[in-house]
Amino acid sequence: MSTLSTRLLEIRTGVLSKNDQLAARLRERFQRAGVLALNFVSSPGSGKTALLERTLAELVRAGRHPAALVGDLATDHDARRLERSGALVRQIETRDMCHLEAEMIATHLEAAGWNLAELDYLFIENVGNLVCPSGYDLGEQVRVVLLSVTEGEDKPVKYPVLFNSADVAVITKLDLAGACGIDLALMRQNIEEVRPGITIFETSARTGAGMDAWLAWLMAKGVS
Amino acid sequence: MSTLSTRLLEIRTGVLSKNDQLAARLRERFQRAGVLALNFVSSPGSGKTALLERTLAELVRAGRHPAALVGDLATDHDARRLERSGALVRQIETRDMCHLEAEMIATHLEAAGWNLAELDYLFIENVGNLVCPSGYDLGEQVRVVLLSVTEGEDKPVKYPVLFNSADVAVITKLDLAGACGIDLALMRQNIEEVRPGITIFETSARTGAGMDAWLAWLMAKGVS
Repeated sequence: MSTLSTRLLEIRTGVLSKNDQLAARLRERFQRAGVLALNFVSSPGSGKTALLERTLAELVRAGRHPAALVGDLATDHDARRLERSGALVRQIETRDMCHLEAEMIATHLEAAGWNLAELDYLFIENVGNLVCPSGYDLGEQVRVVLLSVTEGEDKPVKYPVLFNSADVAVITKLDLAGACGIDLALMRQNIEEVRPGITIFETSARTGAGMDAWLAWLMAKGVS
Repeated sequence: MSTLSTRLLEIRTGVLSKNDQLAARLRERFQRAGVLALNFVSSPGSGKTALLERTLAELVRAGRHPAALVGDLATDHDARRLERSGALVRQIETRDMCHLEAEMIATHLEAAGWNLAELDYLFIENVGNLVCPSGYDLGEQVRVVLLSVTEGEDKPVKYPVLFNSADVAVITKLDLAGACGIDLALMRQNIEEVRPGITIFETSARTGAGMDAWLAWLMAKGVS
């Protein structure tokens, strides 16, 4: 390893452990306030925003109090989409950053001025990226990885690091499974190979298929 | 900016310019050898391998000599798929790296032992990632960004850096456009907004739609 790489590695380790410390403090705050924090990770275009849109609306309808922080390199399209659910929503524009970090969560929570004690859920929509978000703890209690049927069965074995770091997997765009000719059993098997024992949901935010099981899990998990 | 961030930035700049120097030397080698090098970037699951599979087979059938370097975090699935085309193929397993770098290209070209003077095309399939590969020149003459109709119209404006760095855009999985309810005109408009004047192809590797125009462009471009 060259001197340059060694130095880079040392400094990256420094950055990561600073992130880990901040994430641990955030997790304590969330737990004290009785907020379930979930970090949604996936490829770009896997349907994080569509799943959240429907999830937030259903939780609001059920009398729960969800909020969402939405990460994108640019634009506030997602935040505007999600606000229609009636939930509290704030956009995080990362510019050229390929992932969210705990410091961004802390900064945006403070700027939003939300009273965490009044919230039941904090959904964090990460930047669409199957690699880089894996190393950055955001203080979440649950990491949710999404995988669209349109992406192919092999993604978990080709991008094992992120799938391995997740607690829950949500297969999305189930309504396109037939058109894509996807082998759902193989997709599930590949997820379980990389992350044995993971909870898997199969959903379509468009048709509503599978949303009941996902929402029932969230409702049960969110009781503090 | 903290001292830590400043140091990190300086060292990253150092890494980048080392990459740029190596990339410039690779580009000179490709040009001297009459090889057209193309760097394929996109989200995971956009169909890079499927497009390449069909492209390599057609070029081999037309008497051209293509080779491919295929980047993935893990597995050699893609290389094995592409080898069936009759082209020269080598897998690059990046482990936990979220992008390819010029040094990996140089190392793997040497290990493969290919005679560049006998090749017409070198296709480089980058790691599926819409953010990080943008900053790493691989010595390619053409950067091709793929965007699947299943990812939604908004990806170019949400991930402008990578789209802005591309020379050519290929819209993929055209056969799913109806099932996804995609607005293709809006998708094209968003690509052009971020990268005015870019050449755009619309293809389906499954049905073959649009492959003629893409192949004709490649054939014309590959004449040295």
